Amino acid sequence: MSVVMKPTATRAQLDEVIRKIESSGLRADVSSGEFQTVIGVIGDEKRLDFDQVKLMPGVHDAIRIQVPYRLVSRSYIPKDVVVKVRGVSIGGNNPPVYMCGPCSVESYEQVHRIGKQVMEAGAHILRGGAYKPRTSVHSFQGLGLQGLEYLHQAGKDLGLPTVTEARSEADVEKVAKYADIIQIGARNMFNQDLIEAAARTGKPILFKRSFAAQVDEYLSFAERIVANKNRNILLCERGITPLGGSFKPQTRFSLDLNAVPVLRRETPFPVVADPSHGTGRRDLVPPMSRAAIAAGAHGLMIEVHDRPQEVLSDGAQALLPHQLKGIVDTCNRLYKTISESEVPFSSDIANGNGQG
Amino acid sequence: MSVVMKPTATRAQLDEVIRKIESSGLRADVSSGEFQTVIGVIGDEKRLDFDQVKLMPGVHDAIRIQVPYRLVSRSYIPKDVVVKVRGVSIGGNNPPVYMCGPCSVESYEQVHRIGKQVMEAGAHILRGGAYKPRTSVHSFQGLGLQGLEYLHQAGKDLGLPTVTEARSEADVEKVAKYADIIQIGARNMFNQDLIEAAARTGKPILFKRSFAAQVDEYLSFAERIVANKNRNILLCERGITPLGGSFKPQTRFSLDLNAVPVLRRETPFPVVADPSHGTGRRDLVPPMSRAAIAAGAHGLMIEVHDRPQEVLSDGAQALLPHQLKGIVDTCNRLYKTISESEVPFSSDIANGNGQG
Amino acid sequence: MSVVMKPTATRAQLDEVIRKIESSGLRADVSSGEFQTVIGVIGDEKRLDFDQVKLMPGVHDAIRIQVPYRLVSRSYIPKDVVVKVRGVSIGGNNPPVYMCGPCSVESYEQVHRIGKQVMEAGAHILRGGAYKPRTSVHSFQGLGLQGLEYLHQAGKDLGLPTVTEARSEADVEKVAKYADIIQIGARNMFNQDLIEAAARTGKPILFKRSFAAQVDEYLSFAERIVANKNRNILLCERGITPLGGSFKPQTRFSLDLNAVPVLRRETPFPVVADPSHGTGRRDLVPPMSRAAIAAGAHGLMIEVHDRPQEVLSDGAQALLPHQLKGIVDTCNRLYKTISESEVPFSSDIANGNGQG
Amino acid sequence: MSVVMKPTATRAQLDEVIRKIESSGLRADVSSGEFQTVIGVIGDEKRLDFDQVKLMPGVHDAIRIQVPYRLVSRSYIPKDVVVKVRGVSIGGNNPPVYMCGPCSVESYEQVHRIGKQVMEAGAHILRGGAYKPRTSVHSFQGLGLQGLEYLHQAGKDLGLPTVTEARSEADVEKVAKYADIIQIGARNMFNQDLIEAAARTGKPILFKRSFAAQVDEYLSFAERIVANKNRNILLCERGITPLGGSFKPQTRFSLDLNAVPVLRRETPFPVVADPSHGTGRRDLVPPMSRAAIAAGAHGLMIEVHDRPQEVLSDGAQALLPHQLKGIVDTCNRLYKTISESEVPFSSDIANGNGQG
Repeated sequence: MSVVMKPTATRAQLDEVIRKIESSGLRADVSSGEFQTVIGVIGDEKRLDFDQVKLMPGVHDAIRIQVPYRLVSRSYIPKDVVVKVRGVSIGGNNPPVYMCGPCSVESYEQVHRIGKQVMEAGAHILRGGAYKPRTSVHSFQGLGLQGLEYLHQAGKDLGLPTVTEARSEADVEKVAKYADIIQIGARNMFNQDLIEAAARTGKPILFKRSFAAQVDEYLSFAERIVANKNRNILLCERGITPLGGSFKPQTRFSLDLNAVPVLRRETPFPVVADPSHGTGRRDLVPPMSRAAIAAGAHGLMIEVHDRPQEVLSDGAQALLPHQLKGIVDTCNRLYKTISESEVPFSSDIANGNGQG
Repeated sequence: MSVVMKPTATRAQLDEVIRKIESSGLRADVSSGEFQTVIGVIGDEKRLDFDQVKLMPGVHDAIRIQVPYRLVSRSYIPKDVVVKVRGVSIGGNNPPVYMCGPCSVESYEQVHRIGKQVMEAGAHILRGGAYKPRTSVHSFQGLGLQGLEYLHQAGKDLGLPTVTEARSEADVEKVAKYADIIQIGARNMFNQDLIEAAARTGKPILFKRSFAAQVDEYLSFAERIVANKNRNILLCERGITPLGGSFKPQTRFSLDLNAVPVLRRETPFPVVADPSHGTGRRDLVPPMSRAAIAAGAHGLMIEVHDRPQEVLSDGAQALLPHQLKGIVDTCNRLYKTISESEVPFSSDIANGNGQG
Repeated sequence: MSVVMKPTATRAQLDEVIRKIESSGLRADVSSGEFQTVIGVIGDEKRLDFDQVKLMPGVHDAIRIQVPYRLVSRSYIPKDVVVKVRGVSIGGNNPPVYMCGPCSVESYEQVHRIGKQVMEAGAHILRGGAYKPRTSVHSFQGLGLQGLEYLHQAGKDLGLPTVTEARSEADVEKVAKYADIIQIGARNMFNQDLIEAAARTGKPILFKRSFAAQVDEYLSFAERIVANKNRNILLCERGITPLGGSFKPQTRFSLDLNAVPVLRRETPFPVVADPSHGTGRRDLVPPMSRAAIAAGAHGLMIEVHDRPQEVLSDGAQALLPHQLKGIVDTCNRLYKTISESEVPFSSDIANGNGQG
Repeated sequence: MSVVMKPTATRAQLDEVIRKIESSGLRADVSSGEFQTVIGVIGDEKRLDFDQVKLMPGVHDAIRIQVPYRLVSRSYIPKDVVVKVRGVSIGGNNPPVYMCGPCSVESYEQVHRIGKQVMEAGAHILRGGAYKPRTSVHSFQGLGLQGLEYLHQAGKDLGLPTVTEARSEADVEKVAKYADIIQIGARNMFNQDLIEAAARTGKPILFKRSFAAQVDEYLSFAERIVANKNRNILLCERGITPLGGSFKPQTRFSLDLNAVPVLRRETPFPVVADPSHGTGRRDLVPPMSRAAIAAGAHGLMIEVHDRPQEVLSDGAQALLPHQLKGIVDTCNRLYKTISESEVPFSSDIANGNGQG
């Protein structure tokens, strides 16, 4: 339910509505715009008397939620959200942000060395996995806490903010302590408890879409982040399972760039693309990076390693540092070209949705 | 890696190999057959010197793992595993087991009333959700601990073992305390930390296949249960996302019965089918229940409610108690018919795999 | 559009409505029930003045089509259609019909030899491909016309009706001349011109669902057969592309048995399952055959070869003749068991659809 | 099989090998490079004695085909193929080509009026459907021959080459007579007889990938075009069925841009993207058009209509003429930006395939 307050509603009336909501065991998320205040009601709506709320003083209307998500939609938050991380601004009209680094943190020396290279190539944020989600119990599962410390120290020494994955609820506190952005991986997109735990830290959340989720489902789970009073959300497209599966010798996943303009239109949050996991092949990272930026992505997450033949995980998709520089330069030019054209990114959102 | 010991190996030699494995930071799972002892090595195999192990006294051979799963395969555990839960035996040549009850536990009265009805219709195990995985933060999320207590009490009063889902690592201890079988839901199939936490309780695990997982991936995650010294596994097929998705007005998921004979051949564990979630439609539950048993399923998980129009979740797929009785009777006859035919279930596994 | 005539409408009034429809460039398909005559309007409905038709004498109502198919639905043809082929009755309450034989016709001797074996194992109809749809131009494409002649002669000599595929419009006339049932293969499910050409021969059509089609789409294309005045339709489920594709070492396709009860409920036509192509593995044919019959299939299409190591196509999925006998015997018993139970197949259709 | 001739082989030796191939009932396709002549063997290879061919005079080697396609691969045709249509060059290093027009030809006036508008907006080729593939028999199926004549006349009057679909083998001759490029639609990608009939006309073929085809399968069917001595192939990505299907309110299909760089690397043929059908939504056409060009597409196929609310098919995805101009201008700038960067399109192909 969304409760729309009258423009003339007083603070006391607003508080009364919030009290009513909370006394029914639900939560209230207040969104105050220039002209209007809307209260998002979070939780099982059957517990709240809809008609009663409608009649409370100061209430203009109460609207039942028809779509599975509401708090993440542009009708609730109309303007672009810009997420700021230690001086880096992501989203809105800001130029592309590059989050780069090794798949796994293997040592301080390794993550610092690669971090330096990606920084020189134009990256703004350092990525590296400490808690690795892996299919096989027989594979390398990440360095854990030690990996977090190495990543944190390398980021500090280089002056780069960091992002790393919290794989389990047990990791959240540690990741929140050491990293600047908490990543929720694709396999955990349906893990509502982990999402909510991460959201409650207040830290920015890089929230990856599952390879098996429709955009609707994806946004329904993103809804849980806002429902926990956290709007620092980076949405991330990282590839869906293509029809008929493993496109060997082609690609394991299909980076679904259609999601980029759809997400930009539906939600106010920055949208990031991950062409490394989204394709699984180093040679596809350059063209799909360019395509992601052209489609409107606010940033890219790219795996980089200077010795890909030696890595403990995902070597086949890691870019070499010198390749990263070429991608960053070209993508920045594409961004500029489109921004200065007669139909810049913002017109993708402004125009009618073509569905009528 | 699997280390195959010589038939003549001594206990001391075995212990020495185990010590070697554990001192490398890995775990050893010992499987002793009539003629041969095999040690399953669990963890990142790069940390163990393969050639050194091969040369240790008492070792016949050390074999690198070529498939993503090994501990759950019939080459590691050749004979059917029968899971026993408070007097109910599931798997092997035992007749079908029915796990029935409401989607969500709503009150003691409700779960006891429905429990009594399903028991009279032939069910052996009582199911009911306390921690519900839900797409929307705006839906009913289950009664939590109170739901566990109601389910436990109803099961005790009726003399039925119980099964319920642990949605998060934080739930595992409570679910293990109150229920006889811990369910890992389809959305958590990729949640390795939850799976391992549940496995470590030693309780039987009903492990549902994700709607987005290949059988290979599914078994790779089941591998984590055996790797935590727990062989009480019930595999559960509950529907995959069909091509082109929502088969409206047809089915949301497609119960993938091909998985039943594939899982029975590949692994020794009991295989259960869930036609309620697997189809999402009450009218498809009877024919797909029959089909699951005919395909070789050792049991069925079926949602039943006597007032489906009133339920807080998934009413459209819940069967009525009198319908359950018809299904149980017919399925038992089908089981008997096939068991007594010239080509009983066991011949599905005995025959060549037809892949040459 | 469906035009529902009044019970009191005269033949002249009916003819007048048909004339009106045909003069607008559309076709009229008349369905006369005990109490009511309905005219199905076929073609682009925008060319017909809806309101005018409603006002014509004898017309009770004119209803716009809301679903993509109508002529194949039970609301248009309420009673089960039984397709009769040279003494073999398929559909309704008839026991299962088995259509068996080699993937490809390779010689008269081969198809006669295997035909004799499948007949002795209980098969009713002889199958064999003459025009083979193949992915690679470098594979065997079938014997063509000569294959048709061999199949026809073997069927005649053994007293078995025959079924074979028409791959192209150019094949239709020849196949209609030589075979008793024209098969439209899964890859041609979207080939509207081929479907209509085959339908116009008036021969029974075995119409396979594409591995990539929703049930809705499938029925929309089946609609074209009835639209061409042919109701001798055998619907055939033969496997969909599973999520994530090639389930190696599992299955290439997933036989989607959910389609069997859905199709039986939605349409009056016999439903056949093809576990050979639907799984691609010989060892899965027995369990999935049993499951298909238990789900309500009216028949099975099974590839059989006595020398599978020598065949020119699809050897890995061909059953041996002695295996066929076991399947036929068990499936016949399963059919009998369910037919004689308190909830026979017909109750799957009679009960509410559970969607409310 | 590919037969690689020695550099010193004589014309007579080459002819002898061709004779040997053809006398075995197969076809020979000769590809002469600067230094080497390779003969592609087309048809069922089992009919040719491999070892015998290897020993023939002038033969350097005979190689069995390991992949399902060979004649369309860069190992067979290393250099980019540029397809020329009445003065328009598509592929290689040529700037993007735009193929635009209405979904269906409805009248001469309509196709000429829209054709003029798209030409002024920068389009090079006029598209319009005369034989429409439609799911429902109750929808508009196109004007047929009359539509072809209108399209042909409009193209002639405007000086634009034309492209239109041949839906059935029966259409091929007519389409070849009236249009400059024959389109094979996505639903006919598996229709081998239609593909071969179209190829034999020698006309350029715009060959659309099925929404249900892996890239491997797609190229296997493209192989049939070269096997019929036609190398004028335009490959076209037009969207795959996304997981979980209808992404409502998102997109019906997912334009799979990963296919663009994969196809450019694997084959020498021009690659075109169709963002109109690939997304089904007008508002997604601009961002996905930009993304397609950035990914390396040689051209775009875009539906345009000046009165989308009136069209007989697919109005929701048709762009307005003034929108087309914006897309063309921006895409041309993106092409120029990338071509002049340090890592132009050609470097996508030149670099290692990243799969080691």
